[in-house]
Amino acid sequence: MTIDLIAFDADDTLWHAEVIFKDAQDKFRKILSAWQDQETIHKTLFEIETDNIALYGFGVKSYTLSMIEAAVTLSDGEITANDINEILKIGQVMLESEFPLLPGVKETLETLSGEYPLMVITKGDLLEQTTKVNRSGLTDYFSAIEVVSTKSQQTYHQLMKKYDLNPETFVMVGNSLPSDIQPVLSLGGTAIHVPADTTWAHELMDDFDSTQKNFYEIEHIGQLTALLPKIK
Amino acid sequence: MTIDLIAFDADDTLWHAEVIFKDAQDKFRKILSAWQDQETIHKTLFEIETDNIALYGFGVKSYTLSMIEAAVTLSDGEITANDINEILKIGQVMLESEFPLLPGVKETLETLSGEYPLMVITKGDLLEQTTKVNRSGLTDYFSAIEVVSTKSQQTYHQLMKKYDLNPETFVMVGNSLPSDIQPVLSLGGTAIHVPADTTWAHELMDDFDSTQKNFYEIEHIGQLTALLPKIK
Repeated sequence: MTIDLIAFDADDTLWHAEVIFKDAQDKFRKILSAWQDQETIHKTLFEIETDNIALYGFGVKSYTLSMIEAAVTLSDGEITANDINEILKIGQVMLESEFPLLPGVKETLETLSGEYPLMVITKGDLLEQTTKVNRSGLTDYFSAIEVVSTKSQQTYHQLMKKYDLNPETFVMVGNSLPSDIQPVLSLGGTAIHVPADTTWAHELMDDFDSTQKNFYEIEHIGQLTALLPKIK
Repeated sequence: MTIDLIAFDADDTLWHAEVIFKDAQDKFRKILSAWQDQETIHKTLFEIETDNIALYGFGVKSYTLSMIEAAVTLSDGEITANDINEILKIGQVMLESEFPLLPGVKETLETLSGEYPLMVITKGDLLEQTTKVNRSGLTDYFSAIEVVSTKSQQTYHQLMKKYDLNPETFVMVGNSLPSDIQPVLSLGGTAIHVPADTTWAHELMDDFDSTQKNFYEIEHIGQLTALLPKIK
């Protein structure tokens, strides 16, 4: 096959994001431990966060609003202004965090960018995601950065239309089966799965068929350079 | 001149947005009136919101986080969980609000879309802004919707590069002098100012030179159809 463009997911594909969220969860659980056990705190926050995705979308600001809502619920209205302030700070620290690049990312992008146009397609909050790409020092390797609200088949279809791309010459690399892999395979594109160390519960996919045409899996992004000539 | 594309700002150019924010402010002031006078509440919220723009960006979620931070400050740590919950609800109501179209918008876009490619270039939160465009019923008139974090000269330069546009054939229509008008004029484009009924304090521009080349001003968007042939 001809490859016209390789697109990368960002969070947990190019850099660690889950560790930042896990740190935040730990701090949140500590604040709420005066009222509830760890499991209840975790479960309630996850439920509120999931319920809010349609309204708030993804990203740190949405997550902070869900933490505050969960704090009111979990404390049965007893949470103090001081604690609320601490939760606001958890969110602000997340927004200011450096997201550490995953091993091999810089070298791989440097090699590949000499041969193919590269793009980022990432879900989440526009300001947060563009800030992270800029801070990562990877901006120059990409010809475009697309921040989208959801990664459905329709989203990829619209992006391919916008960039005048044939799905058969499009390769997507990412850690999420439902967001990065399945919609691209369904459109006739090629998808390369790079599982993350930890996988966010929203990103699991029980019924994924790993025997699908044009599906590849590698252990880490450094293996991409060797894989691409084989699927060409 | 030839016009290759006409781009529109969204908030307070296509629909009322300020009224939704003013309603939210009123509700917020009511909650905090137990602790402070109206002017102090207004001033503190505005200061916190302005300070947070670099970190949070624009949009309702950012505004809600700033309201919560201001509530903690203004109540000197006395705000209750119940009040915090009310503030979360103010934000959720804003996110679910219908933003009413300004008079003449639909008819004007319908007429113009037969003659020119039309685009939306709007600042803010990706999910919030795309939801508003979709809800507005205007989606079909636009060939693209671009949600950006800031509207600087560089932002417009990048967009023109992305769409392969010559600034001299680009027209921007909007209500904000610093965001919609000045950066486009500086790049050699044409900018048409449609002042909003109310103008957000962040959007004022004292040193704007209204004698600049390619600057036009109309009272409402309905006058656009008559103006365009004259500047062609």
